[in-house]
Amino acid sequence: MPKLLVNTVAIGTVGITSYFWGLGSKSKTQEKSETKNLPVPYTPKSNLPSSVNPQDFYKYGFPGPIHDLQTRQEFVSCYDRAKRNPYWIVEHITRDSIKSTQGVDRKKSVFREDEQIPVKFRNRLRDFFRSGYDRGHNAPAADAKFSQEALNETFYLTNISPQVGEGFNRDYWAHFEDFCRRLTGKYDHIRIMTGPLYLPKQCADGKYRVEYEVIGSPPTVAVPTHFFKLVVGENNNSDQISVASFVLPNDVISNDDPLTKYQVPVEALENASGLELLYKVPPNKKKDLCKEVRCEIIVREFPKNVNNAMAISAKFDKA
Amino acid sequence: MPKLLVNTVAIGTVGITSYFWGLGSKSKTQEKSETKNLPVPYTPKSNLPSSVNPQDFYKYGFPGPIHDLQTRQEFVSCYDRAKRNPYWIVEHITRDSIKSTQGVDRKKSVFREDEQIPVKFRNRLRDFFRSGYDRGHNAPAADAKFSQEALNETFYLTNISPQVGEGFNRDYWAHFEDFCRRLTGKYDHIRIMTGPLYLPKQCADGKYRVEYEVIGSPPTVAVPTHFFKLVVGENNNSDQISVASFVLPNDVISNDDPLTKYQVPVEALENASGLELLYKVPPNKKKDLCKEVRCEIIVREFPKNVNNAMAISAKFDKA
Repeated sequence: MPKLLVNTVAIGTVGITSYFWGLGSKSKTQEKSETKNLPVPYTPKSNLPSSVNPQDFYKYGFPGPIHDLQTRQEFVSCYDRAKRNPYWIVEHITRDSIKSTQGVDRKKSVFREDEQIPVKFRNRLRDFFRSGYDRGHNAPAADAKFSQEALNETFYLTNISPQVGEGFNRDYWAHFEDFCRRLTGKYDHIRIMTGPLYLPKQCADGKYRVEYEVIGSPPTVAVPTHFFKLVVGENNNSDQISVASFVLPNDVISNDDPLTKYQVPVEALENASGLELLYKVPPNKKKDLCKEVRCEIIVREFPKNVNNAMAISAKFDKA
Repeated sequence: MPKLLVNTVAIGTVGITSYFWGLGSKSKTQEKSETKNLPVPYTPKSNLPSSVNPQDFYKYGFPGPIHDLQTRQEFVSCYDRAKRNPYWIVEHITRDSIKSTQGVDRKKSVFREDEQIPVKFRNRLRDFFRSGYDRGHNAPAADAKFSQEALNETFYLTNISPQVGEGFNRDYWAHFEDFCRRLTGKYDHIRIMTGPLYLPKQCADGKYRVEYEVIGSPPTVAVPTHFFKLVVGENNNSDQISVASFVLPNDVISNDDPLTKYQVPVEALENASGLELLYKVPPNKKKDLCKEVRCEIIVREFPKNVNNAMAISAKFDKA
């Protein structure tokens, strides 16, 4: 009989501080997002018992869910407090921005918790320790080498998801990220949305089920079953955009797999994520990016020291 | 090898209509919620390549996630587009409001889709058909008998989750709902937050995993592993509130189980849901409701015709 996990989750995470009735002592992050999200005032209807007003619940504090938006130099992150993962990251890269500025070095960056997220909802450094998963960047570090600060920001845990290391994060996924950077050779602007997914699969009994691991102690950080990228190419002299979306399993992928195997319709990605994608762009202004460029990875042997560093970092680095 | 479900999800759900660049043709629902959710304008920093601005992605349309808030007579619902379930429902009941008004009859109510939700994110009547699950109310129908309109509103699918019928929805859960109504005998106002949860359990290999079924064709509606209720009692002459939260498995529960077995700390519920609960109320103003009243169900034999009607409805009613 599997052990249920309700009370366990609470251990060590109770952190009620000094709140005051009606004072609205919400965090800065919350002010930015969900507090503005209240509906228009409700006018009770005549057949209502006079005292009934379900919106009065908000006087105890609007429950959320909150989406913590963080605007960084190279990306914006939107954080999912229930799964302790990003909902999505959007990036903007250009052929200039992906160049390395002298002195900017990944080795100077360290993973760090995002203190804008309340502790009880934060993904923590310790959650990843000995989990067997890499601390996988959604916005890749290599996309932000134009400044040390921009690079450092990619190491905030609000940009990080648990990823399978060997065969995925350190291999196929890295080649896929490289493909996105190469697109700057063809388009003036590349905008990339990256995020985790939790997809159902058909089981032996014919039913569909979502199943994913949760890491940490207590276990709070979801291990996504898949990751998506929505890639948009845009040229300065055009009112059209070129679009391709991809969904890859968070698993070992053979370098022989063509990237197009993982291309999916944008609508499928909307259905899987619950997000609305590119809805302001009329259909006739959207072209299939993979019909304009060869959507393929180039397998490069990454320098052994980089791969070693990532492996060591994942296994032994408690910070 | 389980069949993955990405492309399948897209079938029959592609519904791009006439969008226009920059015209912001968002639905009424969206206007109400997420569009106001954008962060303050970002001032590019000096070491940024001049053209990089990740927030430019929003010109294609802000991706969300959107929380669709619907304010009804007896409850407010907040809808989760990814799981096609409520995030939560908040209700307000009083000893007057739970009385039946003459002529108000559950048999006059029908389940109906919530047309405020875009079709591609909507839970559909057909998703529940022959799923083996009841269309379970989060805000119970029996809490809204003061008017036919209020009662009808509880049948919107944005208030509905797939629930195990026999042994849960039609039994223990119904007795639990009855317990909440009985609390109006003790408190002037009862406010109830109800919602689904997707909780991890420890598996044979020692790891924690979340696993839940997804129903519909294509499968899009999540079957929650658990349901919670946060119950708040308040008296007109007091600045204190009485609080208890409960988490019950979406499964057969013995009527012999004491209700207190399912009581959990509010902080545990926050951790499990990602929601912030009652944060405007200082700790010393919150009392344990189960220390003031006997938190127990009373098992009543529901009239056979009601239970039969629910069973028939679940199994045969295609609408």
